[in-house]
Amino acid sequence: MTSNLGKIPIEQHRKQFPGLANKTYFNFGGQGTLPESALEAIANTHRYIQEIGPFSEKINNWLQAKTALTRQIIAEELGTTANNITLTENVTAGCNIALWGIDWQPGDSILMSDCEHPGVIAAVTEISRRFAVKIEICPILPTLNQGDPVAIIQQSLTPRTRLVVISHLLWNTGQVLPLKEIVTVCHNYPTDKHPIQVLADAAQSVGSLPLNLPESGIDYYAFTGHKWLCGPAGVGGLYISEAAFATLYPTFIGWRGIDTDSQGQPENWKDSGEKFEIATSAYPEYAGLREAIAVHRQWGDAQQRYQRICQLSNYLWSSLQTISGVECLKTSPPEAGLVSFKVLGKSKSLVKTLEKKGFFLRTIANPDCIRACVHYLTLTEEIDNLVQLLSSLV
Amino acid sequence: MTSNLGKIPIEQHRKQFPGLANKTYFNFGGQGTLPESALEAIANTHRYIQEIGPFSEKINNWLQAKTALTRQIIAEELGTTANNITLTENVTAGCNIALWGIDWQPGDSILMSDCEHPGVIAAVTEISRRFAVKIEICPILPTLNQGDPVAIIQQSLTPRTRLVVISHLLWNTGQVLPLKEIVTVCHNYPTDKHPIQVLADAAQSVGSLPLNLPESGIDYYAFTGHKWLCGPAGVGGLYISEAAFATLYPTFIGWRGIDTDSQGQPENWKDSGEKFEIATSAYPEYAGLREAIAVHRQWGDAQQRYQRICQLSNYLWSSLQTISGVECLKTSPPEAGLVSFKVLGKSKSLVKTLEKKGFFLRTIANPDCIRACVHYLTLTEEIDNLVQLLSSLV
Repeated sequence: MTSNLGKIPIEQHRKQFPGLANKTYFNFGGQGTLPESALEAIANTHRYIQEIGPFSEKINNWLQAKTALTRQIIAEELGTTANNITLTENVTAGCNIALWGIDWQPGDSILMSDCEHPGVIAAVTEISRRFAVKIEICPILPTLNQGDPVAIIQQSLTPRTRLVVISHLLWNTGQVLPLKEIVTVCHNYPTDKHPIQVLADAAQSVGSLPLNLPESGIDYYAFTGHKWLCGPAGVGGLYISEAAFATLYPTFIGWRGIDTDSQGQPENWKDSGEKFEIATSAYPEYAGLREAIAVHRQWGDAQQRYQRICQLSNYLWSSLQTISGVECLKTSPPEAGLVSFKVLGKSKSLVKTLEKKGFFLRTIANPDCIRACVHYLTLTEEIDNLVQLLSSLV
Repeated sequence: MTSNLGKIPIEQHRKQFPGLANKTYFNFGGQGTLPESALEAIANTHRYIQEIGPFSEKINNWLQAKTALTRQIIAEELGTTANNITLTENVTAGCNIALWGIDWQPGDSILMSDCEHPGVIAAVTEISRRFAVKIEICPILPTLNQGDPVAIIQQSLTPRTRLVVISHLLWNTGQVLPLKEIVTVCHNYPTDKHPIQVLADAAQSVGSLPLNLPESGIDYYAFTGHKWLCGPAGVGGLYISEAAFATLYPTFIGWRGIDTDSQGQPENWKDSGEKFEIATSAYPEYAGLREAIAVHRQWGDAQQRYQRICQLSNYLWSSLQTISGVECLKTSPPEAGLVSFKVLGKSKSLVKTLEKKGFFLRTIANPDCIRACVHYLTLTEEIDNLVQLLSSLV
């Protein structure tokens, strides 16, 4: 397999990631490994803030400019512009901004897939309790190998559906949902008042799939920088389409979302994604995320990274088929970097054993399985070594 | 003036703060200066996470233990226990957790002081719009030098008041409100259903006033680590009393607030302040805050730090009286580290000039003034130099 789709051989490129040096890492879907230059950017930003501030007109202007630059660089990865980006602490906060910002009416309904993250499920459940909104779950899990998730969603819509909550790339099975097609059936569904909106949990897709969000039509796309983008924990964001921006209210509110008048009183909302930002954040981490994205771009563009991810996940998936006692959830090659497989009855103990031997994977509760994530940074030798070890253990 | 109330001479102690080396800093109420050892703790934690994780059973357990330790150390500063502490990104997020977690009914009323931060005002305004809750403003500003803020608040309560929103230490004038007395009149006010609760914005009080929150009776106390505690930006918290905990609902929700069952489905809320935490944070910053608190404790306890703060702010306040053209807002010595003063007509240009000369202060819009913050780290020479410079400029 070619390891130099990008400009730089991957063996050389990945030396920039200290987290990859002492282990065989398959948990990019949990947290990505931070490049050395991002660690340095974080430390340097902390020192610069102490030198010029930490609170001064000069440093506050500088932080504002760097925050704007962070939105800009993230926007480029999503195929959009900085105005559509809200910076958040994590993907879940982004989901909550969308969920709590809709003017729910009793009897409204949320349609959610059966593969969503427990944090999002808990938030939707509380929305349901507070506003007497109905929750309906549609069976996407069974469409992993056959059936049509778009048709399942379309059949589950009702005139009371206000919002559809899905993940773009399912965190449990690795299935990629056809975002544009799902958005189209939702937006085209006849309703009395509001068009049906779509919120995507993009925890696994940002940094792994090539994206053009305006082209997809998605209303809300919540993501994090610390998984496939390999940024530091604590920085994520939310893309809000222009149409959705016009109808969404801010919920958790602070100085970052407002302009004040000469008396220091709130005057109006910011006219961009900043409207939904709250207050002081760990700004040095923004520098870490910008640097992590820059490192990926040195190697290749989003399409090139995705192409290598798919080559590698296909290789892992194919190799796993050769192990007796291991069953991949997917019966066809993965469409992204997540490869989930079953080892009957001993997922938890096996993952513990693997971690002790320096191979980092995780278990998933539903469906009960083990998840291995390959990034464009992964080496075929790492996959070979994992498969060999698994063969000896199952 | 004695500069060694604590065990270590302040001149030696403050050398641990690189941000104090190259300037004369009076913006602790904007952001505190981070000690060198906190910068190192942040960087070391980032590196340790890369070495052991970034996502593994071992690092996840370690992060969970360190997060619990962070709640514990913060709790000690507030005179409470870790169970009552929710970690947040900033003080505003803490205010929002309380504001959005009350089961508002149309006709309920929020009583807010006229000295609150614009971010909090904007959040309260949106609560009012969403839930048809009335906002009443009580005039605390005029009680800076005469009058009784407790009486003003008491007179402003009505049977519909559900929540009183005040700051413990006013960010604009530096007035300290008598927290326990205010809470007592609110809790004792006869209402049909709920006792009137009190939310304190503690942005300026945590790290500057000695605190015993359970003794004060306060319901919600939202704070940040990056001002008077001199931690990194991006870590704050919310204290919730046990009585208030029983009635408050989570709003922004994620995996940190819930337990899941064997199928990975949300099963119940966490039975502590974690219930209101959301998801992945900038965990290395927690290490920075813990270390900053440890550095303060090396010098002295909260009472000793407060005593020195008051000595210094009294000295600054007295010295400012000697400058013709400068008028302190307070007519008696400050009760904490904030010293606000007027220089007629040229606050903004004066603060700019001061910053260029290496003296860091800020303007406040309402009342129009300049704010200088002295911490226990401040030197009398710094105050002398500021006063001398101001004398030459006004």
